[in-house]
Amino acid sequence: MNRFLLPVISLVTSIVALASAALAADCLSCHRQKTPAAVRQWEASAHARAGIGCAACHGTDHGRIEKGEARVDLKVCGGCHKKALADHRASRHGMGLHSGWGCTRNLPNRDRQECRFCHEQGSEVPKSEVQCARFLKQSSEMAEIGCNYCHMVESSCAACHTSHTTDLKIVRDPNICAKCHMGPDHPQWEMWQTSLHGTLFATAGRETGPDCQTCHMPKGSHNVSVGITMSSGGDPYPADKRKTRRDEMLQICAKCHAPEFARKELARGDAVRDQSHALVKEAELIIGDLADRGQLDPMPDRRPPHPLRGNQLVLDNQLLYEDTSHIERLLFKMKKYDYARTIKGAYHQNPSYTHWYGNAELKMDLVDIRTEASRLRDRQSLTAGKGSSVPAETTEEKLRVLKKKADRGAISPAEYEREKGVLLKELAGHP
Amino acid sequence: MNRFLLPVISLVTSIVALASAALAADCLSCHRQKTPAAVRQWEASAHARAGIGCAACHGTDHGRIEKGEARVDLKVCGGCHKKALADHRASRHGMGLHSGWGCTRNLPNRDRQECRFCHEQGSEVPKSEVQCARFLKQSSEMAEIGCNYCHMVESSCAACHTSHTTDLKIVRDPNICAKCHMGPDHPQWEMWQTSLHGTLFATAGRETGPDCQTCHMPKGSHNVSVGITMSSGGDPYPADKRKTRRDEMLQICAKCHAPEFARKELARGDAVRDQSHALVKEAELIIGDLADRGQLDPMPDRRPPHPLRGNQLVLDNQLLYEDTSHIERLLFKMKKYDYARTIKGAYHQNPSYTHWYGNAELKMDLVDIRTEASRLRDRQSLTAGKGSSVPAETTEEKLRVLKKKADRGAISPAEYEREKGVLLKELAGHP
Amino acid sequence: MNRFLLPVISLVTSIVALASAALAADCLSCHRQKTPAAVRQWEASAHARAGIGCAACHGTDHGRIEKGEARVDLKVCGGCHKKALADHRASRHGMGLHSGWGCTRNLPNRDRQECRFCHEQGSEVPKSEVQCARFLKQSSEMAEIGCNYCHMVESSCAACHTSHTTDLKIVRDPNICAKCHMGPDHPQWEMWQTSLHGTLFATAGRETGPDCQTCHMPKGSHNVSVGITMSSGGDPYPADKRKTRRDEMLQICAKCHAPEFARKELARGDAVRDQSHALVKEAELIIGDLADRGQLDPMPDRRPPHPLRGNQLVLDNQLLYEDTSHIERLLFKMKKYDYARTIKGAYHQNPSYTHWYGNAELKMDLVDIRTEASRLRDRQSLTAGKGSSVPAETTEEKLRVLKKKADRGAISPAEYEREKGVLLKELAGHP
Repeated sequence: MNRFLLPVISLVTSIVALASAALAADCLSCHRQKTPAAVRQWEASAHARAGIGCAACHGTDHGRIEKGEARVDLKVCGGCHKKALADHRASRHGMGLHSGWGCTRNLPNRDRQECRFCHEQGSEVPKSEVQCARFLKQSSEMAEIGCNYCHMVESSCAACHTSHTTDLKIVRDPNICAKCHMGPDHPQWEMWQTSLHGTLFATAGRETGPDCQTCHMPKGSHNVSVGITMSSGGDPYPADKRKTRRDEMLQICAKCHAPEFARKELARGDAVRDQSHALVKEAELIIGDLADRGQLDPMPDRRPPHPLRGNQLVLDNQLLYEDTSHIERLLFKMKKYDYARTIKGAYHQNPSYTHWYGNAELKMDLVDIRTEASRLRDRQSLTAGKGSSVPAETTEEKLRVLKKKADRGAISPAEYEREKGVLLKELAGHP
Repeated sequence: MNRFLLPVISLVTSIVALASAALAADCLSCHRQKTPAAVRQWEASAHARAGIGCAACHGTDHGRIEKGEARVDLKVCGGCHKKALADHRASRHGMGLHSGWGCTRNLPNRDRQECRFCHEQGSEVPKSEVQCARFLKQSSEMAEIGCNYCHMVESSCAACHTSHTTDLKIVRDPNICAKCHMGPDHPQWEMWQTSLHGTLFATAGRETGPDCQTCHMPKGSHNVSVGITMSSGGDPYPADKRKTRRDEMLQICAKCHAPEFARKELARGDAVRDQSHALVKEAELIIGDLADRGQLDPMPDRRPPHPLRGNQLVLDNQLLYEDTSHIERLLFKMKKYDYARTIKGAYHQNPSYTHWYGNAELKMDLVDIRTEASRLRDRQSLTAGKGSSVPAETTEEKLRVLKKKADRGAISPAEYEREKGVLLKELAGHP
Repeated sequence: MNRFLLPVISLVTSIVALASAALAADCLSCHRQKTPAAVRQWEASAHARAGIGCAACHGTDHGRIEKGEARVDLKVCGGCHKKALADHRASRHGMGLHSGWGCTRNLPNRDRQECRFCHEQGSEVPKSEVQCARFLKQSSEMAEIGCNYCHMVESSCAACHTSHTTDLKIVRDPNICAKCHMGPDHPQWEMWQTSLHGTLFATAGRETGPDCQTCHMPKGSHNVSVGITMSSGGDPYPADKRKTRRDEMLQICAKCHAPEFARKELARGDAVRDQSHALVKEAELIIGDLADRGQLDPMPDRRPPHPLRGNQLVLDNQLLYEDTSHIERLLFKMKKYDYARTIKGAYHQNPSYTHWYGNAELKMDLVDIRTEASRLRDRQSLTAGKGSSVPAETTEEKLRVLKKKADRGAISPAEYEREKGVLLKELAGHP
């Protein structure tokens, strides 16, 4: 920025501040009654001390404020807090999380046509008020409290800072992160609390035991994605991005630990991630095969269609937990809960989350998925067949299943041709 | 009260106090050895400072004390603490919760004959030592530690105040509520802790972040049901009572929030409650239908009979979790755990409890219930039929199921007649 | 010890201390950069104040240190902290917990031949780097973070004390215990926190509310097994050992409570343990019977063999949660999670863990096990039989099942002969 401009801006800011402080007096006479906590908190805030009054953030159009049209979103705050806004926007917190605003926007490997579900082609403005975690049938009330209470972090600084308090003690306390980073799908709060880091924090303070902010907001940065090497769904980034990010984290670890120690600890997390991913893949293969044979209950064509892929089986990362089959629901738990707990537990050095809440659940759910698959296979043969013992699958049936596997990309065209050849020979040999 | 009586009562009280303080000296010589913590806590208590000694609460009959016949229940405390007792009795804490003492007594919509399971007709005294959460087969040990450790709140102030401490710091701390208001069925403690209210409490203190007592014991009242608009099972009160109660809560919210904001937040909880209730109802319909068709495994007539309704299917609010079928056990989880977490999560503004621990579980359990219902339907047709594919239900069978639906009140007599007519016509048309 | 030796030892120790303090200076110049937290913590430690430098614990062979061959295990610490080491070794913390080092070593009732799975006969040295919780197929990374992060307590004082800090505030805080004593299988941390003891600790401090250390490390002892009356799997000790241990705990309780009160509270825990154990046994009988009839899915002979018992059904205390059947996985949850929560909840006076997280789960899992058993029985008859309704079991089949029961010790030889007689008569009567 041109350094001659700075004093001018500073002067303008001061004038705005004075004006808004003056206006504050007008607001306070009513709002001391109507929103007492807001007024109390503002009065004790750095904003009040700096003469930043109500109008500076809320404007002066009381009609718009009352209609909820003058929301104090991150652009308002970012007008002054430029560095924080820039950091925030570079982080996962700032990107495409807000339910109803296109939460799939920043997923890696997403299907391009999905954009068109929410957007006119080429436009950033959503064309409809879609309530989704990729197409969940959620009520607006559930979306508000169940989704956007957290995901509003994309657009509102108040998600963490709360509305009128400027007390840094609040946002520098790891408690403030718990509000969202908890629960079955990403219990970072719970696993940190009972890790050695969290234990030392509780017993000997932040200097000895690092908290969320120490590692994920180094030097007060609002880029919480520093040092993260995978997508929010647990898919590792490409090698070069992964290396850059890992180096960032190692620098943070190095404030306390020997570099070699930190490198090993994080590499163990990578290994656990890969091993856990293999268990999930095994489950996906079982379910894909059941679908090919028409054995899911209910089959996708007897459920509400997927908005983009119709009645095709969709097992990807944002798998729905509603209107599905029991076995897919088990896979949902594996992917969204067990897998997340295992790998986040490993990176946060929490044995109980890595093993019991993570790995053991992954393996138990895989046991249940195998049993259910066996049940479904028997059941089809019993209800569809002659009611006698399971009939051997005919070569024609095998060919049909093979074709389906090729169609959905589970095997390559070359593999398809090779296996088809084997089956056709089999068919010829048993006339 | 006659105001001339007051000085007299005051005098009598003082004499009792002095006498009991004198007696305390006799007790202490032994009890300093036998119950050291009780003595230490009493010595540091407001009771000791006011000269209220052992005998004032425990009496002087050592034989009865030793036999456990001189329990210091809420009538003893209420002799002095009259306002607290009156508030307590007006609240849910004071009503019919004590397991074995008729825990169904204050449920809305309860079946009148259920009283007779515990009481002689017209008598308040239980006729038997029934151990129940409506008839669970619970051991006396499990009833003591698993049920009455909390539900004794009906009859004992020590449930919260502990026995000899009078330190208000303890009972004004939200931790004391956690002992009971936690767990899978009503995790109010957990959901508050990680809500914005709880987070602000942890980081900036009670003045900024309200705790249990702030909202549920306003002005130190012992009526914890102020502002609550539904039964403990989540059934909304009748409209007029609901309005009165909501207005009470809005006044509490208004200490910090704009009334319109608070009204909207609570109305969102109402909407989430209604939507969640619909999911539970859908599951109940599925299970009721399976029972009508004799497809539950095991059917109620192959289980221990319900003490009041015999071998009828009972799906009401205090549904048992033992000696039932897998699908009813899933419904139990929906009603008792998922539903409670969803709606209490919404009213306490906790996104993770509302969505992941609540709504997502409701929907996943419904998926599992639908799958199990499909399995049970197929199974009956396979084991009972000719073992071939599912046979079409005969019109006679349809008529029998329709009759059962009418008998258990699932359809009105008019609906029954109408649908019966259709089926009879069908029967006549296909001789 | 010869009392004339003491001053000599003392002198030698002082010389070593001085020498190692001198050496510390050499280490610090590099390690202030390389492991800053370790240096900071050592500088603030009692070790530094007493002149105990790096070499005293780590030695001076930098090559071995770098290769991880100079680990500071409990023998190093125990060289000075003799009483702590002796206490530790007498406790469960000191015995056979370390995964990969023979974790079955100290289990009661273990199969002697199991020793040979890890050890040469007669040798204490493991013959292979077995990664096991009795034979789980665990990766070395999962074993490190998921198992040994806690189980290293057998061999390393740093499991609780952390590496360089000597601040007793840390290890006297119950938080430090949470790192391991939490989670679905032994949530002692969670159940203490929300018990009356934990609540009083949080609100009125350690003097009023006892913590882990108060009861389990009385007078600072490192023998954490004082007063414990059962194995880690929940099997009660023999009567005499049980009595000795109970008396130890009653003495601890007596610091606050009347002996009779404490005795009753702990006896209630015993009763709950026995009642809960009966539910687990009921489930085991159901599963054993299914195995006898070949109805498990998959049967043990279609899974990876047990390292010691091959394809036999193994339902013992360290039951695996992988490569098993759905119904055995449910039993695993009952034994490892539900049972532990119920009984530990009862001994720690936590109603929610005893009842909801414990007893209710035990009963619900039993419901699910019964339903699954019914499903499996029907399924066998449908797939193996003619597809018609369940055929009556032939007498020959009954005889075969009876033989299997006798073979695995579920019935005595006398019972076998008696029941066999009945069946043979039946066979003769229906030619």
